[in-house]
Amino acid sequence: MTLPAAPIGAAPISQTERAQRAREAFDHLSAPADALVLFDDQFIFYYSGFAIFPTERPIALLITRDGERTLFVPRLEREHAQQTSEAEHVVDYPEFPGRTHPAKHLAELLTRQGLDSARIGVDHDGYPSVMGYDGPPLSVQLPQASVLRVSRDLDHQMSLKSQTEVALIRESARWGAHAHRLLQDYTRVGETETAAETRATAEATAAMTAELGAGYRGQNKWMSGAVALYRGQIGPNSALPHAMTTGAAFRPGDTLVTGAGAAVWGYISELERTMFVGEANAEQRRFFGHMLNLQDVAFEALKPGHTCAQVDEAVRAYYEREHLWDHWRHHVGHSLGQRIHESPFLDLGDDRLLEPGMVLSVEPGLYVPGLGGFRHSDTILITETGMEMLTDYPRDLDSLILPA
Amino acid sequence: MTLPAAPIGAAPISQTERAQRAREAFDHLSAPADALVLFDDQFIFYYSGFAIFPTERPIALLITRDGERTLFVPRLEREHAQQTSEAEHVVDYPEFPGRTHPAKHLAELLTRQGLDSARIGVDHDGYPSVMGYDGPPLSVQLPQASVLRVSRDLDHQMSLKSQTEVALIRESARWGAHAHRLLQDYTRVGETETAAETRATAEATAAMTAELGAGYRGQNKWMSGAVALYRGQIGPNSALPHAMTTGAAFRPGDTLVTGAGAAVWGYISELERTMFVGEANAEQRRFFGHMLNLQDVAFEALKPGHTCAQVDEAVRAYYEREHLWDHWRHHVGHSLGQRIHESPFLDLGDDRLLEPGMVLSVEPGLYVPGLGGFRHSDTILITETGMEMLTDYPRDLDSLILPA
Repeated sequence: MTLPAAPIGAAPISQTERAQRAREAFDHLSAPADALVLFDDQFIFYYSGFAIFPTERPIALLITRDGERTLFVPRLEREHAQQTSEAEHVVDYPEFPGRTHPAKHLAELLTRQGLDSARIGVDHDGYPSVMGYDGPPLSVQLPQASVLRVSRDLDHQMSLKSQTEVALIRESARWGAHAHRLLQDYTRVGETETAAETRATAEATAAMTAELGAGYRGQNKWMSGAVALYRGQIGPNSALPHAMTTGAAFRPGDTLVTGAGAAVWGYISELERTMFVGEANAEQRRFFGHMLNLQDVAFEALKPGHTCAQVDEAVRAYYEREHLWDHWRHHVGHSLGQRIHESPFLDLGDDRLLEPGMVLSVEPGLYVPGLGGFRHSDTILITETGMEMLTDYPRDLDSLILPA
Repeated sequence: MTLPAAPIGAAPISQTERAQRAREAFDHLSAPADALVLFDDQFIFYYSGFAIFPTERPIALLITRDGERTLFVPRLEREHAQQTSEAEHVVDYPEFPGRTHPAKHLAELLTRQGLDSARIGVDHDGYPSVMGYDGPPLSVQLPQASVLRVSRDLDHQMSLKSQTEVALIRESARWGAHAHRLLQDYTRVGETETAAETRATAEATAAMTAELGAGYRGQNKWMSGAVALYRGQIGPNSALPHAMTTGAAFRPGDTLVTGAGAAVWGYISELERTMFVGEANAEQRRFFGHMLNLQDVAFEALKPGHTCAQVDEAVRAYYEREHLWDHWRHHVGHSLGQRIHESPFLDLGDDRLLEPGMVLSVEPGLYVPGLGGFRHSDTILITETGMEMLTDYPRDLDSLILPA
């Protein structure tokens, strides 16, 4: 197996870029704010580079209008935050629940900064319930402040990827394709799902970490290393879009649906393919053909100036025309990059405009009980004039038939 | 390596037990409610057996006073919910965001059930922000209803483990110890963290799945299979309680902090040990000794009738007496079982009483910059008269010194 040939273009996000995000966040708000208080681990990583796994101990990132960042962490995380985050300040509280609730410590911090009657943009009004966390809303702790939800605005900022971000997603797609090629190679009649997945994932991860060097970090909570999986989508079970791994063995005639990607300094991509064990029968060919057409309809509609809804509507018109509604289960796709699913969504209820720099999955599917699921997923970039594929893997039937 | 010898006592939670939980949930409420609406995936699994990975597509479980359960899912999950959950009814909405927001569909479902002006207990006022989800609170959708947060009450129900749950946690602890023994065996000078972890985890998982048979499922979002890890807690980095895997190689003189457990039909356990590569020096022995004493102080205080706070206070008195405050980073422990951290917490701010059936981690730690971290963690059960260890692994220094 030859390794992916493309040159390495990916490097971690620079401190300059993260600091710029923090300053520019305010430009994306639909209503003015004096400060941002963010509790979501993904926003915290995006603006400060602090990669954490959320627990019941609250962590918050305060950003003031000048872009200055203060991380609010439990004592437990002080050194970790000081050593690995790019926040200008780290402030800690003793423990949760503690004799004084962390929500009170946070309110005191904001008051010391003169923000007790300010307009505060938040992703959530107080730390959300994680594990056994329980606490009051920020708006109750700071009754004079005006607390406004700005997640949707920050999601928009996050959806517009920089060149560095696109390079990371492209690098992820390269390794996802490598893992997928191995998965395809190791999928043979009588072999089990678990064996094929484990071998492909381990070998692709080893190749990637060797090439990306000692500085490589995954920094993503949904993926680690380079992975290729079936997640139970084998034979008739492939008709369940989010099946669970079952350890099934491959049999001639199976319809298979895969998933592959890689975590590269916080960024991921999505590649999925429908494959068949042995020659596809007439029914399998028919649904595979429709599925390819559905994806082509979406590709055609993906361009700046169109809304997300328009893409879903174009694809839905094909379901309608071809009498495929019984086999519809979900919209066309979602944004992605740092989170495995981000907004906006390629959904008839999402009126947001497609803009250059957005990265989305394109994955309309057909589900046929008893036969299987039919879904390719590719990751694309919205360009100035249309779209560009970031995933690079054969889509045609002949390339996706495995020996029986 | 001989396999764990204890007989298998673990079986999945029965449908009867889950149905009983749903009926009895109302008995745990501190204020009466006509229905419960739960959005948290862990509560949904606890009461209905539906194991899902939360995304931006809302899922909710409605429980009425008679214990009848209705799962509210996206179209995508309908068959999955019908086939794998124990809810009496499954109701689906088309998609998120969709032309009609799912929050509106949910409000209509509650209205059809006559609950639009009812007292509704929730874990969260509306579906929380997951990935790109954005939506209104339930209290805004149903302005006539009285929406009350009851997470703390339901957490209390969840903290009182049944005999079946304790058997599952015990089984998890048995396989966690097996994985840990392998990790200890494979940790040798010059070997890397990643290699030792991967080998121990793969072999322990294979042994466990072989013994528990084809019906085995992990069904836990924090662990899969049987695992033993360092998570970067090697040498001076062991002083960071939640370090990240770094791929470091073991060197003579290293202080190591481990973590092990296993996922068994939704339940987990926690086992951590402090180990040394080669003979421990005087400083390492001194802190190891204090750490053992701290854990012993906690074991002594763990009995029904004591509050959680009393345990933390007893342990804190030892830090105080021995002048160890510089090395304190966190409270004594947390409940666990289905979630990796549950409430109540062994923390001076937690006044809740210890009761028979509660399962907690006991893990006071000492952290010495430049030298390392010193923490054992054991999982214990509160009994009628005191406590019982569920983890079974040597704690003494001699057993935890590896050849250099």
